[in-house]
Amino acid sequence: MEFSLIERIRERTAQGREDVRIGIGDDAAVLILPTGQEQVVAIDTMVEGVHFPPGTSSADIGWKALAVNLSDLAAMGASPAWALLALTMPHADVDFVDGFAEGFAELARPYRLALVGGDTTRGALTVSVAVHGFAPPGKTLTRAAARVGDAILVTGTLGDAAAGLYCLQHAVEASSHRDYLVGRLNRPAPRVAAGMALRDIAHACIDVSDGLLADLGHICIASGVGAEIEAGLLPHSSAMLSLFGDTTARDFALSGGDDYELCFTVPAAHVAEAMADLARMGCGATRIGRVVEGQGVQVRDAQGQWLDTSRRGWEHFSR
Amino acid sequence: MEFSLIERIRERTAQGREDVRIGIGDDAAVLILPTGQEQVVAIDTMVEGVHFPPGTSSADIGWKALAVNLSDLAAMGASPAWALLALTMPHADVDFVDGFAEGFAELARPYRLALVGGDTTRGALTVSVAVHGFAPPGKTLTRAAARVGDAILVTGTLGDAAAGLYCLQHAVEASSHRDYLVGRLNRPAPRVAAGMALRDIAHACIDVSDGLLADLGHICIASGVGAEIEAGLLPHSSAMLSLFGDTTARDFALSGGDDYELCFTVPAAHVAEAMADLARMGCGATRIGRVVEGQGVQVRDAQGQWLDTSRRGWEHFSR
Repeated sequence: MEFSLIERIRERTAQGREDVRIGIGDDAAVLILPTGQEQVVAIDTMVEGVHFPPGTSSADIGWKALAVNLSDLAAMGASPAWALLALTMPHADVDFVDGFAEGFAELARPYRLALVGGDTTRGALTVSVAVHGFAPPGKTLTRAAARVGDAILVTGTLGDAAAGLYCLQHAVEASSHRDYLVGRLNRPAPRVAAGMALRDIAHACIDVSDGLLADLGHICIASGVGAEIEAGLLPHSSAMLSLFGDTTARDFALSGGDDYELCFTVPAAHVAEAMADLARMGCGATRIGRVVEGQGVQVRDAQGQWLDTSRRGWEHFSR
Repeated sequence: MEFSLIERIRERTAQGREDVRIGIGDDAAVLILPTGQEQVVAIDTMVEGVHFPPGTSSADIGWKALAVNLSDLAAMGASPAWALLALTMPHADVDFVDGFAEGFAELARPYRLALVGGDTTRGALTVSVAVHGFAPPGKTLTRAAARVGDAILVTGTLGDAAAGLYCLQHAVEASSHRDYLVGRLNRPAPRVAAGMALRDIAHACIDVSDGLLADLGHICIASGVGAEIEAGLLPHSSAMLSLFGDTTARDFALSGGDDYELCFTVPAAHVAEAMADLARMGCGATRIGRVVEGQGVQVRDAQGQWLDTSRRGWEHFSR
């Protein structure tokens, strides 16, 4: 049964890549390595009820399990190549597996990402994906490279996924705005092209998975700096503003997780260039603050008052 | 909390490897690739109650989670380098994490294997490990390379882990034999050096994780051949024979999972050479049968009678 499940997934996610000498079906995969590149690898797990609400469609789970990992590669500026899948589920549910594979493949296809290995086991619904990507030596973006004086930018809009979760949990009336926000929760679009474009211009970079305050806080700790954010500059979607208004939008943007936008720092002199580079690939970016001496993330409102930011983004095991 | 748990594991498993440019602590790890090698990757999951009995010590779980993956690399003839860990547990249990890391590190150390990335999440106890190893181009062992006329061999002894599980489940009286068998269940020793030694001499290879009949069956399917096994030649440990006797030992050897020995085929003319190569690295091997035309695995007893082998090794989701 194990064999046939992973075989089903293999068939439904097949990608012709010449660097896969042996894919799913043996004890391990055998991969031909590129020359002149460093390998970038990440692993992330999604658990039902923790990382996605019960009732999430299998296709959305398959998409998101890959998306959160591609987002890690994006934050490093790496281009995706291969993935491994560990899928644990209560029983051998073929319909679930087919839906999962379909969602996974839909996101994998444009990246020509190949699923090269997998394991299916019985247990509580838990999905781990490991991804492998590449970047030129020394060119990866890290959390530790922010410098005092850098501008802080984010791609896209913030807080949409948290607002989408709110819509699901509070049975918000159906509308195109609601659908947009729930779609941002269930089908996040990893900023892979943006991350690669930022390799030569950004200093530090992280993906916003746990909320802006928490993730920008990781940059501050790793870089030994502080950050000041202007709340009035935070980018909100029109769906967010229509359904929730300014103040709630701000809270979602600061503390909501699951957006998978990139938060990055660039020298102030290169902000325009970075925004133009991203715009060319259809990715908007917004300057929201600056890197300062000190530590921690401070947020100023439109009147110049410092906000109480003790309400932080969620972390696993703490909510 | 997530951060500090994975930090604890990082500290306790630290391995100095110059090819790890960025390890645990950023969005992804950055790894310097060797030249002139292919990469071999595998992922395997262990779930409490399915792959290890409740009550298994955290250190044993840490050891075994890595061991089953190293065994996959061994079956391909690859040398281990890096690992990723996805650890899901019901709550942030620092003692569990410390024990897990200790067992993991104990096995990782002699291989200089570095844990380069990880994710800790809340949920039912589930451990996925992905491993990365290397082998010279075209030299990996596969399931698909068995040829009619090959001899079939296995390393070590078979059935010990299944016997160890029986001891735990039936409260078999404490003894050195019992401890040996339980140790084989909880601390399997992956045959990494044996796998590498077999690269130039074996045809097909697989690790015995689901039982000899099931795993040799995988070789038969992948290679388009059949196999004949002499039950009288199956290697048993003295602990097994002392506690269980010949007939039960045979059943455990044929159908018991979790041994993580290697089952491989070699041209008949090279059997002595293969056994000598393995003996030099302290690994015994036993010739147990031969590859034949046809399909499936047949087992003959000491009197030349074919056994009914419909009782197969277990597979996930089927027991």
